[in-house]
Amino acid sequence: MSEQITRFDLPQSEIPHAWYNIQADLPRPLPPVLHPGTHQPIGPADLAPLFPMALIMQEVSQDRYIEIPEEVREIYKLWRPTPLMRAYRLEKALDTPAHIYYKYEGVSPSGSHKLNTAVPQAYYNKMEGVQGLSTETGAGQWGTALSQACNFFGLECIVYMVKISYQQKPYRRAIIQTFGAKVTASPSDTTNAGRSILAKDPDSTGSLGIAISEAVEVAATSGGRLKYALGSVLNHVLTHQTVIGQEALKQLEIAGEYPDVVIGCAGGGSNFAGVALPFVQKNLTEGKTTRIIAVEPAACPSLTRGTYAYDFGDTVGMTPLVKMHTLGRDFIPAPLHAGGLRYHGMASIVCELYDQGLIEAQAIPQLETFSAALQFLRAEGIVPAPEPSHAIAATIREALAAKAAGEKRLILFNLCGHGHFDMAAYDAFLSGQLVDYEYPQEQIEAALAALPQI
Amino acid sequence: MSEQITRFDLPQSEIPHAWYNIQADLPRPLPPVLHPGTHQPIGPADLAPLFPMALIMQEVSQDRYIEIPEEVREIYKLWRPTPLMRAYRLEKALDTPAHIYYKYEGVSPSGSHKLNTAVPQAYYNKMEGVQGLSTETGAGQWGTALSQACNFFGLECIVYMVKISYQQKPYRRAIIQTFGAKVTASPSDTTNAGRSILAKDPDSTGSLGIAISEAVEVAATSGGRLKYALGSVLNHVLTHQTVIGQEALKQLEIAGEYPDVVIGCAGGGSNFAGVALPFVQKNLTEGKTTRIIAVEPAACPSLTRGTYAYDFGDTVGMTPLVKMHTLGRDFIPAPLHAGGLRYHGMASIVCELYDQGLIEAQAIPQLETFSAALQFLRAEGIVPAPEPSHAIAATIREALAAKAAGEKRLILFNLCGHGHFDMAAYDAFLSGQLVDYEYPQEQIEAALAALPQI
Repeated sequence: MSEQITRFDLPQSEIPHAWYNIQADLPRPLPPVLHPGTHQPIGPADLAPLFPMALIMQEVSQDRYIEIPEEVREIYKLWRPTPLMRAYRLEKALDTPAHIYYKYEGVSPSGSHKLNTAVPQAYYNKMEGVQGLSTETGAGQWGTALSQACNFFGLECIVYMVKISYQQKPYRRAIIQTFGAKVTASPSDTTNAGRSILAKDPDSTGSLGIAISEAVEVAATSGGRLKYALGSVLNHVLTHQTVIGQEALKQLEIAGEYPDVVIGCAGGGSNFAGVALPFVQKNLTEGKTTRIIAVEPAACPSLTRGTYAYDFGDTVGMTPLVKMHTLGRDFIPAPLHAGGLRYHGMASIVCELYDQGLIEAQAIPQLETFSAALQFLRAEGIVPAPEPSHAIAATIREALAAKAAGEKRLILFNLCGHGHFDMAAYDAFLSGQLVDYEYPQEQIEAALAALPQI
Repeated sequence: MSEQITRFDLPQSEIPHAWYNIQADLPRPLPPVLHPGTHQPIGPADLAPLFPMALIMQEVSQDRYIEIPEEVREIYKLWRPTPLMRAYRLEKALDTPAHIYYKYEGVSPSGSHKLNTAVPQAYYNKMEGVQGLSTETGAGQWGTALSQACNFFGLECIVYMVKISYQQKPYRRAIIQTFGAKVTASPSDTTNAGRSILAKDPDSTGSLGIAISEAVEVAATSGGRLKYALGSVLNHVLTHQTVIGQEALKQLEIAGEYPDVVIGCAGGGSNFAGVALPFVQKNLTEGKTTRIIAVEPAACPSLTRGTYAYDFGDTVGMTPLVKMHTLGRDFIPAPLHAGGLRYHGMASIVCELYDQGLIEAQAIPQLETFSAALQFLRAEGIVPAPEPSHAIAATIREALAAKAAGEKRLILFNLCGHGHFDMAAYDAFLSGQLVDYEYPQEQIEAALAALPQI
């Protein structure tokens, strides 16, 4: 009697040797990134104060595959390939004919997919003689990943952590410090940006926008000693994350399956793109017809209710202008617990795919995502982070739709991280203290009215 | 060019089909467990109010292998087989010719090895019509595991959590509740035991001993509706944990290696036994000569400084009398952060092996264990729990000894859990607030003087 297999492992030799760069396969090129002053397309030199040239070149590369350096693959081996699991017990709980698979990125030492890009970012900076990296962190996943990556390559790491998170999440701060990073609550008195905020409001609890400004300032004024690192949104970040989808393709092949639907949550867009892009490629180049769904919070619906226009990447308005689905940089998302999805814009690659009708998007309210998380964890054991709980909620919707249609349908979703540092959110949910946030149309329109005129 | 492999996976079909029961291979039988009143050996009927008969029979079984029920193996598949990793980067950091391997049990949904026994315990209770389980938890690993296991089998779960932990570890409480368990801070007013403590000291912050008394009382007075579950010490618990060592044996075979040294931390003794017993078997029956080392905290040195005598398993003196290496039930271990190792006694099986010279023991001070944890996590990425950090410290000692001797030596240790819920301990260590605890000989002797006279 052959037994039910629910986990599909790959040996370390099957860690991809190249990242997949979808720019080579897009039906039309990405809109150019514009200089905030001149509104003219920026060139590599404009980005050189902040990023190493290798990453700038990846940002605009049209090569389909970018080789993964051996030093990066060696570190990937600490947790990759990640498991592909068949959620057999969830299927039974839902009584659905759908087959549900999830790729589990929470096995990484940082607990999420973020380490997939933190490691190569640290590597390329190290290769170009940079001595350290500055960054911001809100929910803390990215700060954890970058501190680990810098530790592996002997780089200094400076993390500006949004003050309210710094205070409310002492264990997140602690794990970042454990890997040797210097964590500063933002706004701080260590930068002009921070001091100017504190002068106006000494009790400011900070924001991701302010923390970005501080991290960028520290790098830009370091005389080349430090550079800056971003954990999502940029093309090279999404490209690095394609190891997720590439592995999932091979693992599904072992399982003898191919997905009808691929689902990921989307804040900046990198974990969604990581699982999705290799399947988008199959749709574009091999005639596959997989539905690809980006799931965002109803409280921060950049794809489903934003507009596709040029906007700043940050809140303060210091970055280049990027064409993206945005709610406007003045949009302040409600304090939902999926902190990693509270971003007014979206990665350019994801937006272009959405605009071209190559992917779908859904917005799901907070309470539905926590209910879905609870159903998932009681079936499968793993406590998901609030962000991928959006992907779980969409998966459950699709599995129930398959049941209603009486069709098998194969669903793959990306479980991009565990929720071990998010138990306060579960506590709030279980005690009935969580609420849904919805925005009236006029509020969305007011935020969009403030977009820069390009 | 063949690349360095650092992870050795097994397919789900290689999850063991039987637990290994070392009672079949012991050179002399375990000393009998005695009734606390009569001092006569107890029989199965004496334990029936607390445990299902299947587990009582496993407790005294002389069968070498006990078949793992298919329902248990199905749930094991959520995380087993666990990975065996070669700590290649740690070897380099130590510049040692030793080969260091670790079995990583932290990938379980509960974050530790505890789920290996929680699942079968819940299963056997369910099979015998029990409706729920009561237990105690201190550090929280066991409460988490039992709440998950009860959830999988639809059993009620009642957890008495030591009040100081309940207050200091709200996220541990939350994850236990997330799986549907009822968590009560102990001492509580829900039991006679709790009420009598509160009458004497309304501000009592509790102890594991008190929590055991409450959990046992709730089960014993439930009229058979509830039974009690223990997460370590008992023979059947250690037997269930042998899946760890059995898998490690197969994985090392794939790696083409066999250990010179096997290391595990020991509090009650179950994770140590889990990794060690299959290798002890090879020593006993196949002439292998692997050194097997149990590592305990210097602040709770039951093997290295206790005496081998009959003692109560709990602090209050309600349990049967067990012959074990003990510091005496009046011994109050210092508040070290490895809460899972703060036990005055030790599993009978481990004690008998130690008394017969079949295993070694080491006691390591707290600061050395946290230094070792830091060295490990900065090399390998994973943040270990404070308990297995004792095994890491002993591993580093052995690896440096191998270097001094100029010998290869193969070391295997059990990384029994991650430290995601222990970041406060790392915080204290990094800020220089941790101390070592040592006990003067007269203090040990005073505790031992109170042992029951058998």
